[in-house]
This record gives sequence, structure tokens and C-alpha cells, in this order.
Amino acid sequence: MSSERLIYLPLGGAGEIGMNAYVYGYGKPGQERLILVDLGVTFPDMDGSPGVDLILPDITWLAERKNQLEAVFITHAHEDHVGAVAHYYEALGAPIYARAFTSNIARRKMEEHGHSEKAVRTVSPWPEVTEAGPFKAGFVPISHSIPESSGLVIDTPDGRLVHTGDFKMDTDPVVGEPFDASVWEAIAKPGVKALICDSTNVFSPMEGRSESSVGPEIEKLVASAKGMFVCTTFASNVARVKTLAEAGERAGRSICLMGRAMRRMIEASIETGVLKDFPKVVSPEDAKQIPRESLMLIVTGSQGERRAASAQLAQGKYQGITLAEGDTFLFSSKTIPGNERGVIRIINQFSEMGVDVVDDTSGLYHVSGHANRPDLDAMHKLIKPQLVIPMHGEHRHLREHVKLAKNNRLYGVLAVNGMMMDLSQNTPTVAEYIETGRTYLDGSVKIGALDGVVRDRIRMALNGHVMINVILDEDDEPLGEPWCEIKGLPETGHSRAPLVDVLEEDLSQYLGRAGSKTLIDDDKLEEGLRKVARQSAMGEIGKKPEVSVIISRLSG
Amino acid sequence: MSSERLIYLPLGGAGEIGMNAYVYGYGKPGQERLILVDLGVTFPDMDGSPGVDLILPDITWLAERKNQLEAVFITHAHEDHVGAVAHYYEALGAPIYARAFTSNIARRKMEEHGHSEKAVRTVSPWPEVTEAGPFKAGFVPISHSIPESSGLVIDTPDGRLVHTGDFKMDTDPVVGEPFDASVWEAIAKPGVKALICDSTNVFSPMEGRSESSVGPEIEKLVASAKGMFVCTTFASNVARVKTLAEAGERAGRSICLMGRAMRRMIEASIETGVLKDFPKVVSPEDAKQIPRESLMLIVTGSQGERRAASAQLAQGKYQGITLAEGDTFLFSSKTIPGNERGVIRIINQFSEMGVDVVDDTSGLYHVSGHANRPDLDAMHKLIKPQLVIPMHGEHRHLREHVKLAKNNRLYGVLAVNGMMMDLSQNTPTVAEYIETGRTYLDGSVKIGALDGVVRDRIRMALNGHVMINVILDEDDEPLGEPWCEIKGLPETGHSRAPLVDVLEEDLSQYLGRAGSKTLIDDDKLEEGLRKVARQSAMGEIGKKPEVSVIISRLSG
Repeated sequence: MSSERLIYLPLGGAGEIGMNAYVYGYGKPGQERLILVDLGVTFPDMDGSPGVDLILPDITWLAERKNQLEAVFITHAHEDHVGAVAHYYEALGAPIYARAFTSNIARRKMEEHGHSEKAVRTVSPWPEVTEAGPFKAGFVPISHSIPESSGLVIDTPDGRLVHTGDFKMDTDPVVGEPFDASVWEAIAKPGVKALICDSTNVFSPMEGRSESSVGPEIEKLVASAKGMFVCTTFASNVARVKTLAEAGERAGRSICLMGRAMRRMIEASIETGVLKDFPKVVSPEDAKQIPRESLMLIVTGSQGERRAASAQLAQGKYQGITLAEGDTFLFSSKTIPGNERGVIRIINQFSEMGVDVVDDTSGLYHVSGHANRPDLDAMHKLIKPQLVIPMHGEHRHLREHVKLAKNNRLYGVLAVNGMMMDLSQNTPTVAEYIETGRTYLDGSVKIGALDGVVRDRIRMALNGHVMINVILDEDDEPLGEPWCEIKGLPETGHSRAPLVDVLEEDLSQYLGRAGSKTLIDDDKLEEGLRKVARQSAMGEIGKKPEVSVIISRLSG
Repeated sequence: MSSERLIYLPLGGAGEIGMNAYVYGYGKPGQERLILVDLGVTFPDMDGSPGVDLILPDITWLAERKNQLEAVFITHAHEDHVGAVAHYYEALGAPIYARAFTSNIARRKMEEHGHSEKAVRTVSPWPEVTEAGPFKAGFVPISHSIPESSGLVIDTPDGRLVHTGDFKMDTDPVVGEPFDASVWEAIAKPGVKALICDSTNVFSPMEGRSESSVGPEIEKLVASAKGMFVCTTFASNVARVKTLAEAGERAGRSICLMGRAMRRMIEASIETGVLKDFPKVVSPEDAKQIPRESLMLIVTGSQGERRAASAQLAQGKYQGITLAEGDTFLFSSKTIPGNERGVIRIINQFSEMGVDVVDDTSGLYHVSGHANRPDLDAMHKLIKPQLVIPMHGEHRHLREHVKLAKNNRLYGVLAVNGMMMDLSQNTPTVAEYIETGRTYLDGSVKIGALDGVVRDRIRMALNGHVMINVILDEDDEPLGEPWCEIKGLPETGHSRAPLVDVLEEDLSQYLGRAGSKTLIDDDKLEEGLRKVARQSAMGEIGKKPEVSVIISRLSG
């Protein structure tokens, strides 16, 4: 088939929460002109990606087609939407379009990586549009939990697409533009081919609550607090930071922002005019001089991150400030699944100090930034698209969102990362399966998630590591005994002799018995030594360690 | 002071959820006769204890006083109360007392470890009591989420103690004895010195719900299911397993139990007469022949454990059975904090198969086995103790429970692991701080949590591992170049040359420059090589790996 087609290809975010990256294309098969919506990251964890610094979508497919790529559009400045722009700028080379606040954040990233800030282009909101090959894309203000979030209206030769980005229907979002149903109605009027729609909260059965609803509750809490009042939220939730600061100000407290991300976000908000009338803040240096009952700290680390301000305060001290009995610590945030242990650790540390911790169990001090099930339902009805394509969610979310669409008698498309959908037909079909996955930023190097590097690390963590060193002389005869070192293994086992001695004894015996066929063959010798070491360890300590063998040949 | 005293010393469970172990003593200071209540374990995780098989309380203090130890009393058969009895039987040597069901489970553990089952003695419930030195202890039936849970009434020369064990106030627990307030009132009548009380659910604001409340909801769900119905719960929650099986039976389904723990618990329940009229079950072999709409599986793995039946079904197959589109999977359980990732993984795998997953978000299909805040309050009022000593909880739970006691005008004692409290005085005081902690069962070896073994594993997981091998000849001169191996590190970095080559080059240069003072000194040489390797790696891949150096001296 050589006629033109409209394609949709998620490279990240469809089948997971995080690392959003959605490709749209139009043209003859294989020659489509492409745009990318969002280019985010996700975060590593000890279970699956120990030691990794950041997880990026694998964009190999797109990088191989960089000359077809017209533009990258970033819907908002959350890390899971903008976090990879600088890491992949060289690989993709396309201009990056975003609204002012998002651009500000993107430019800081480009600068840190030594890329030109000019690659990031600030655009005005809808009805202004940006032409990118066969596409015309406009940023439509939508409410979320960060300033200037936008949905994208993407006009294509095959019809109009509405890509919501992350959103909620908040008509009073404290900072930034309220959700305006009439704008979306007008957008929907000419007919929408597909609604590509946020899915994270599809399992939340109640209508979403407005950001403005938490203010009065926080104010009450602050007003009743006796000692120092410390609170944390996502640094990017500028509306919340403002609400917290204003509650502090009204209670007669001086406000101090702590943590780099917190100060950076507020700075970007003020620079871009998103945030006006933020209460006066004091520096951590000055905060130390203020009586604790007159002080409010707003700090980073709502997810229990080990290096953030909250964790350091829980350890004892941060920038000269120490919490004490009678102080209050508020989590104005939810704990993202997987982060529970870190958050609970902090809460218990505060408990030991006598600090009263208020978390989100009551539901009073935090609201989600995403559309809940009834809101998604309302969005379907507002846009009335031919197709609903759920995005940004794990498989269970996408599947449930498809069901919801079907309830609304809409055609739902379940497309996960790597499924290239041909949207030109009346019934969308899978055009191709693209290899996708995760790329790890490890130190300063990008490695594939399946390269085996991290798998080896996990194995060392689970099993410990034995290193064996054997020297063979010019005649391929063992020179002395094999040496052993262990790391991450008990020093002694059942025999009460040092584990290293037991291993060396067994390896020595093996080496003594080994014939010349084995001794001249590195692979065979290594295999034999490994097997002996693992069996020997199994008998001694009841587990089979990872084994590395270094064979040194003086003949070499 | 040489007069006799009553002491309380938690060795585990006070400051954490899990690994309960509480010592009571009476006698002259240092010569107290001791009893131990519960001897549980807790479970490792990748974050803090990778590769560890089981976490046990550090009982060094008690083992050093084994001749003072009269008895071990086990309140119920949950792993965090009974899990360590066999591991520590040799170290403690004391007889183990429990009611029939708990004894049955404890004996299975003893048998597996090759200990005599006779060490476990089955006792009848209150008013029967067991004398143990100066103590008389009786097992009072109390409701929880496992058969035959008991609180302990411990009469001492200094007065009566009530140790609740884990409990809830369930007057209709489906299996086993209901909570009977009149029994506890009678126990409280002569006056209770201290209530040592479960704290896990102190933050749950609503009155606890009865186990019997989930039956009708589960029945409705099963009745409406179309394909195969699969459900999981904690295997030890025999009442729940019965409820699930009966719902299946009523819907005309054959019941199949899957997973070793599930079959073992039901077996123990039937052996001990705790469970009567359990629906007829079919074997997995027979289950394969039954049409899916007529089958119910009750499986292990409610916490997403990788090897359990649920995880294997989610992977594709377990004992010949495969789930399919239209089947239902019910989590009749809550996800314990820290296990979210594993559970979510399974849910998404089922979603990919088209299986409908029902979890506990609705609150309809699971109730907790612990007393909530209003129930704890009621227990305080029922027992009217002089002291409330919160146990089994993280610091935040214990602290909140003390606050609750104070609200009831009771004296609350916050005692964490290692705090030996003298309860003889009117106002309890800390008699001594005992060193406590965690012991890891690693393979077949017990290691201290702070021995550094697991720390080294975590470091290898985070940083990767470089092994360096240097051979020095009889004159302490390098023989050839240094050899390098890497594990858990990228093969190439910025220079695009193999990382191993870059490291070997830099190490070789260092070795060439090293003076004889360094070359004759293993420590100095090792330190120098390590530093060079770490710097070299930093430049090449942006991270500093763990380094092991093996120096082989032919002169040795």
C-alpha cells in the first residue's frame, strides 16, 4: 500500500506510568513525517535497576529516522514528560516546542548538558499553532499539578487529534489556567478523529477534587500547630507550594524554601510570570534565627528520597536546622507506589524525635493532578472522538480505560509501547511492532536495560561474589595455589574455617586433578573452577555465589 | 538494689512490624527468671537486605542467659510470631508452649530443622495455666486472622500482665473462638498491672469489621463471575480460605487449593480440629479437566511473591493451569507496604491476559486482623491497666498508641527493642539498654545485619565491581601487566575503547611509576591501584565502582 497514512506509536508511557514519549506520523508507509509528543524519564529502584541514575525510553527507532522528525512537543514540565529532552537532543536533533514555563525548565536541562538553549522554542497557547510538516499543533491550556500544562490539538490531513497530556478538570487550580470546557467543546466541534487520553487515575471512582479545596484544610492545620511547621510536596506543584506558603504567612510564620528543586521551580515560575504574589521567603541562614513557632519550612523529598531535604531533616539536620519535639511535619503529597519504604522510614525517624507527622491518609491535604474515572468519562463526552486511545498508564489502566470508552459506546484502542497503529482506516490496525524498551543512564553512560550489566549487579547483590585467580606458568602448569577473594559473603560457614580457605583448598584439589587438556583451555578451566567454587560454597554457607575467574598465563 | 523486680524487654517487634520477641523477667537484678513471648521473623527486601533468606531478631542477650529462661510462649502461628522457633531452638533450649494449632505449625518447623518435636508442648486455653518459674501464663482465646490466636495472661509476684498478642475484637470470626468481652472483664477484675498491646492499626480510625462481613460480598462476586475464578489470600487466614471455598461451592464450582503454604495450613487446621466442614477439594491434576466456569482456584501469593502460585499463573502457567480472557482474579488481602511493586506486576500481567483483577481498593473483600484505634480504646477500657505498653508496631505506631493511652488517662510506656523496663516501681523506668538488632539467615549461615556482608552486596549492586589482579615476581617487580575484570559495569565508556582496556592501561602506568616502597607493601599497592581504577572509571563511565585487588607474589 503506498497511499498516505496517519500513525501513532508510543515509545514510552503506554504500559507504564512514567517516561512518556508518543510518536505521530503522516505520509507514505516508511516515509512518514514524524512529530514526538513528550520525552520523559522514569526513576530506577533497587529491585529492578540498582545503581542506575535515570531510566529513559529506548528511542532507537526514532533516532534512526531523525531526518523524518519535524519537532518535539512537550506538554508540561514534569520529569516523566520533559526529563529526557537534553539526554536525547543529539540523537534526535529536532526543535523542541513548549510553552514558557515548560521551556524555562527544558532550557535549564539543555544548558546543564551543554546544548544550545535555542533548540527550545517557546510558543503561545492555542489558538496559536506550530506547523511541523503535515501537522499543525496547538497547546491548549489544561489543568494539572504543574503550571502551564497543556493538551495538544494536532491537526492532520486525516483529521484532528486531541492529545490530553496529563490533566484534571480543575476550574479553580490556584495557579494557572482553569479547565475550560467551552474551549474543548469548540475544539471538538469540527469532529475529532482520536482522543489520546491520560489514564493514570482510571481506577479512582470519585470525581477529582480541585486544588483549591486543600487550602482551607492546610490553613486550619498550620494555625493549630505549636512548634515549627514543616511541609513537603512535589516541588513542581507550584500551586500547592503557594497554598502552603500562604497558609504559613496567614499564621504569622516566616517561610523558608529548602531543597534545590523547590527553589528552582519557584524561580522558574516567577521568571515566566506564572507565579505572582508569592509570600516573601527567608533564607535557610536567616531561618535559623527565627523562633520555631514563627517558622514554616517547605521542603523537597515528599517521596522519601534519601538525599532530599526531608530525609536529611529526618536524619537530624539540614542546613543548620533540626526538628524537635512538638514540631509538625506535613506530607502534602501522596506516596507513589514503590516509595512506601522510604517515606515510612522518614515518618519513624520523625516519630523518634517527637515530631508529629501528618500524612495523606485523611485525604484532606492533597489532591491528585489527574482526571479520575468520572472525569475521563466527562472528557470522552466533551470531545466525542471517533477513537479513544488511552495513554500514560500501566496495562491495567489502559485496559480499564478502553472498557470505559466502550461503556460510552466509543471505540477504544489498546496500544502499548511499540505498537504502531495505523489510524487512517475506519478501524485502526497494528501497522507494525517496533522494538522498544528502556535505556539506563548509568553514571554518564547509556546502557540497554537488557544488556546484562544490571542483571549482573542484581546477581552479585543476591548471591555475593567470589573471585578466583589462577596463574599458569610457561608450560601451562599451575604456579602455586589458586587465590580467592570474596565480597558480600560471610567470612565463615559451617566448618568454622574461613570461607576463603575452604574455597582455596577445594579449588587447589581441583587444579591438582585437572589434566593438561583443561589447563590449556581457558574456557574449560574457568568453567571447572566456577563449578567447584559454587559447590564448595553451597556446602559451606548454603548458597551459590557469582564467580569470576581470572586466569593469568605467564606464557601469554 | 537487690530486691526483686519485674522486667519487660522487647528484643523484636517494638519499633517495627514483624519479628516479635518479648522477654519478661522476675527476680533479683541480673538473676531474673525469664520467659519469652513469641519468636518471629521478618522478611528481607532488595532495598536493605538483598539475597538474605530470612530476618531473625538478634537474641544474643537471651542466649547468654539461657539458663535463666524458663519457657517460650507462642501466641499464634503467624511467621512474625513463630517463624524463628526452630532457628533458635539450640541457642535457647527452653520448652515451647502453644495451643494445638500453633503447636502443629511449630512442630513442622522443628521437624524440618531436625529438632525433636517434643520441645513443643501443647497446652489448653485459659483458665489452664503453665507455671514457668515465678510466672503463671494462660492462653486466652482472642480473635485474629489465624486459628487459635491467644492473648496471654501472665501472673507475676508483682501483679497480673495482659499481653494481647495480635488481636481484633471479632465476635463472629467464621473459624475459631469469637472475642469474648466478658472473659476479659473477669481477667481484668483483680486488677491488671500492665496491658502489653498490639499497635499495628492504631492509625486506622474506624472500628474494625468482622471477618464474617466479607462472605456475602465474596459470594456476590463469585456468583457473577463468568470464566475461571481465582483468588488469593494469606494462607494462614483459614477463615478467609473457608469463606472463599464456600462461596465457590455455592456457585457450583469445584475448589482447588494451590501452593504449598495453602495446603499445609488447611491440613494443620483439619488435623487439629480447628476446621470442620471445609468444602471438598480437587487436586490440580483433576482441576485441569474441569470447565473453567465450574472451577475456583484458591492460591498462595497475595503479596506478589515471585515463586508463589499467583505469580506463576501471572507468568503463564502453574501446575498445568493457564488463565485466559474473561477469568477473574481476586486479591482477598491487603498489600503490605513494600510489596506494592510485586503485586502491581502481577496485576498487569493478568491484564495482558485479559483477566479481570479485583483488588482491595473497594474494601469489600478483605478485613484486617488487627484492632483499629477505637478497638484499642475499647481494650484499654476493658482491661483498665495501670500501664499500657504498646508493642508490635513501628515507632510511629507505638508513639501514637501511647498518646491514645494518655487520652484514656492511662500511663503509656514507649519502650522500643532493647529497652529493658523495670515495671516494679509505680513509674516504670529504663533499667538498662540492651544491644539488639537483626540477624540475617543467609543461605544456611546466620550473619549480623551490621557485619558488612550485605552492605558490600548493596555496594556492588549500586556501583558494579572491578577486579584487579597483579603478579609480582621474586624481586617484588611486576610480572607482566595488571589484569582486570569487570562485573556489572558497561563494557565501553566515553572513549569507546573497552572499559577493561582503559583500566588496564591506567593501572599499568601507575604500576610502572610505583616505587619499590609501594611494590613491597600490599596495603599501599592495593590502595594505589584501587584509587587509580576508581578515577579511571569515573572519567570513562561517570561512576566509581567497588574494587577488589588480588596481589599474587611469586615470592610468597
